[in-house]
Amino acid sequence: MAHINDNYLKLKAGYLFPEISRRVKAFTDAHPDDAAQLIRCGIGDVTEPLPQSAIDALKSATDELGERSSFRGYGPEQGYDFLREAIAKHEYQDKGINVSADEIFVSDGSKCDTANILDIFGDDNIIAVTDPVYPVYVDTNVMAGHTGEADENGEYAGLVYLKCTRENGFVAPPPSQKVDIAYLCFPNNPTGAVASREQLKEWVDYALANDTILLFDAAYSDYISRDDVPRSIYEIEGARECAIEFRSFSKSGGFTGVRCALTVVPETLMAQSASGEAVPLHKLWLRRSTTKFNGVSYPIQRAAEALYSAEGRAQVRELVEHYMGNAHILREAAREAGLEVYGGENAPYIWIATPAGLSSWDVFDKMLHEANVVVTPGSGFGAQGEGFFRVSAFNSRENVQEVAKRIKNVKW
Amino acid sequence: MAHINDNYLKLKAGYLFPEISRRVKAFTDAHPDDAAQLIRCGIGDVTEPLPQSAIDALKSATDELGERSSFRGYGPEQGYDFLREAIAKHEYQDKGINVSADEIFVSDGSKCDTANILDIFGDDNIIAVTDPVYPVYVDTNVMAGHTGEADENGEYAGLVYLKCTRENGFVAPPPSQKVDIAYLCFPNNPTGAVASREQLKEWVDYALANDTILLFDAAYSDYISRDDVPRSIYEIEGARECAIEFRSFSKSGGFTGVRCALTVVPETLMAQSASGEAVPLHKLWLRRSTTKFNGVSYPIQRAAEALYSAEGRAQVRELVEHYMGNAHILREAAREAGLEVYGGENAPYIWIATPAGLSSWDVFDKMLHEANVVVTPGSGFGAQGEGFFRVSAFNSRENVQEVAKRIKNVKW
Repeated sequence: MAHINDNYLKLKAGYLFPEISRRVKAFTDAHPDDAAQLIRCGIGDVTEPLPQSAIDALKSATDELGERSSFRGYGPEQGYDFLREAIAKHEYQDKGINVSADEIFVSDGSKCDTANILDIFGDDNIIAVTDPVYPVYVDTNVMAGHTGEADENGEYAGLVYLKCTRENGFVAPPPSQKVDIAYLCFPNNPTGAVASREQLKEWVDYALANDTILLFDAAYSDYISRDDVPRSIYEIEGARECAIEFRSFSKSGGFTGVRCALTVVPETLMAQSASGEAVPLHKLWLRRSTTKFNGVSYPIQRAAEALYSAEGRAQVRELVEHYMGNAHILREAAREAGLEVYGGENAPYIWIATPAGLSSWDVFDKMLHEANVVVTPGSGFGAQGEGFFRVSAFNSRENVQEVAKRIKNVKW
Repeated sequence: MAHINDNYLKLKAGYLFPEISRRVKAFTDAHPDDAAQLIRCGIGDVTEPLPQSAIDALKSATDELGERSSFRGYGPEQGYDFLREAIAKHEYQDKGINVSADEIFVSDGSKCDTANILDIFGDDNIIAVTDPVYPVYVDTNVMAGHTGEADENGEYAGLVYLKCTRENGFVAPPPSQKVDIAYLCFPNNPTGAVASREQLKEWVDYALANDTILLFDAAYSDYISRDDVPRSIYEIEGARECAIEFRSFSKSGGFTGVRCALTVVPETLMAQSASGEAVPLHKLWLRRSTTKFNGVSYPIQRAAEALYSAEGRAQVRELVEHYMGNAHILREAAREAGLEVYGGENAPYIWIATPAGLSSWDVFDKMLHEANVVVTPGSGFGAQGEGFFRVSAFNSRENVQEVAKRIKNVKW
């Protein structure tokens, strides 16, 4: 009989968000009246309309497909030049960062890319993740057979966990041991923390000294408000020799349902073959992309491009300001309720300590039953997330104001 | 230093189509005058406008995203119910085939799915591919470490190659040895052959007797004109216990640049864990989809759904008839030129034997230089493809008539 990939059997319970859905459904089935006023601040999904510039471009590109003379079939797997060039210019070159269009791979999502990137690496690398962590980084390593079984805290044998705590401001320093690959995510999901230039420099220096590859997830970079916080790892000298960067239009352009993202693999980035030869990762990722992917939908690439027009950029700014206004309201409400609050200043997530004696899932249930608000239990992101919960600022202003009121009314 | 996936270094030369592009570019650079009249019948990419029903639905769904009340963010990773139900009804249930909406996974392409499906299988399976073969099946197994090195014919150690020849009508029978996984593609790319009900029954019977999983690629099923040729593997009794089926809107709805496809994993399909337990593959593929994918763009799922409306179905039929009309013209022209011709009756590909003494790449170069027509050399699809070349019927009628004329004018 054909054999399955047994590593899948090591995965715990299920991905965090399906478990949340299950509990919410059980609640709404049991309390249909309360269900009507349920507000979801759980999954980090945008809620506001797609920017008009993207809508116009998407529709106009669709019309192009309706005429033989302007019809396009398969595009380049790594994305059309018009989009790769727009990204290179606006995200990097205009900001003095050295990234060329050829180093940009357009994809249908950062979740997919941070998962698929493992394809080009060997199975014998020592891999570090932060704790708490975006579950996809861990689960995909489990699925690829890079770990042993999970212990009672949900920690998988073979992974190096870097603790993000109050004490280090939720920014883990590089470990004392040598690791081959390290996942970093700033602005952070779930804690909302950002790394300073000095902290990122410490990571790049570590990576260069230890031949470590940094997988830098910057999906929330547009939410950085402080001028002194780097938006790209490539703002740090030496990062072109040690880092892959992931970006997304999901949270900047409200593209979670539209699907477009990008990955930067610098041509100067190397890893080692079994024979000790240095191999450019750009070449491997290109081979991976051309063999296992067929590119992002043409109209959607045009929609992403439109976000870089003058109108598009203004609309993205407005969208981000809307969500960050929400984050401010939620932060203040939680503080007024006497809670210990982190994040929400350079990220759309607020990371709140659970009041003494309550676990993350206790607060999840309390918020669901008493406030009819869905949050995300911190423990779903790893052992160090226990004792915290995440509130997402992706919502309408009206809903956020209502959530702020309800948070203050909960008996903490 | 981080280690690469060394299996990538086993891959030969490069994917077939980039090599074709390279030769075409060298030719057009050297002969700019001839380049102007170049006609591409190489890569199997559609050329005619997107059906109007799909355009209207795509634009209308895009408008929905512009209103807060109808905005949608993340959808279900496996696809929206509206599309899964339309597929289940029109592709299966209305034809008396037992496939439910829950068994359908909507994706961004069959290339991606036939590549990604390996994720859920172990590394110790014996894998069979046909020869000639769609290169993605082979290359993804190489990348996953399921093979040794390639020999001088480009055959990888560890894979079982099933020869498709004139003698068996390009439909390989099941092998005498036991294999765990076998890739089948009907209508076939590249040969254009179809398998009869009896031939598919022989494969299903073999799979059930040997606990083999069949990976059945039916991306071209809409091109079947004969009533007695099955369009789905699930028309064969027992296939729900042994087969995964891949379908695509690329060639039926002209979606190569739009990106939407689907995979059917029946809930009754099992494979074995290391401990000998039977595990449902549906559960594993769902886990893979929810962890490593974020679903297909909402407007594009609406466009795919629209292909099942009354207008949409008529437009798809018209599109398929256009390409099959082309196939007929190309077949006849090649026969009149005295060539030995296969395919093109239930598939958009014509598979032509090279005249005595000429290799596949000889004919590629001859057609490029003498007829200014790009074809695909059969040897690019495997050792058994040597001595053949593929002509694609995806083109305008005008171009096809011109290609027909030029084929007859070549001095064979």
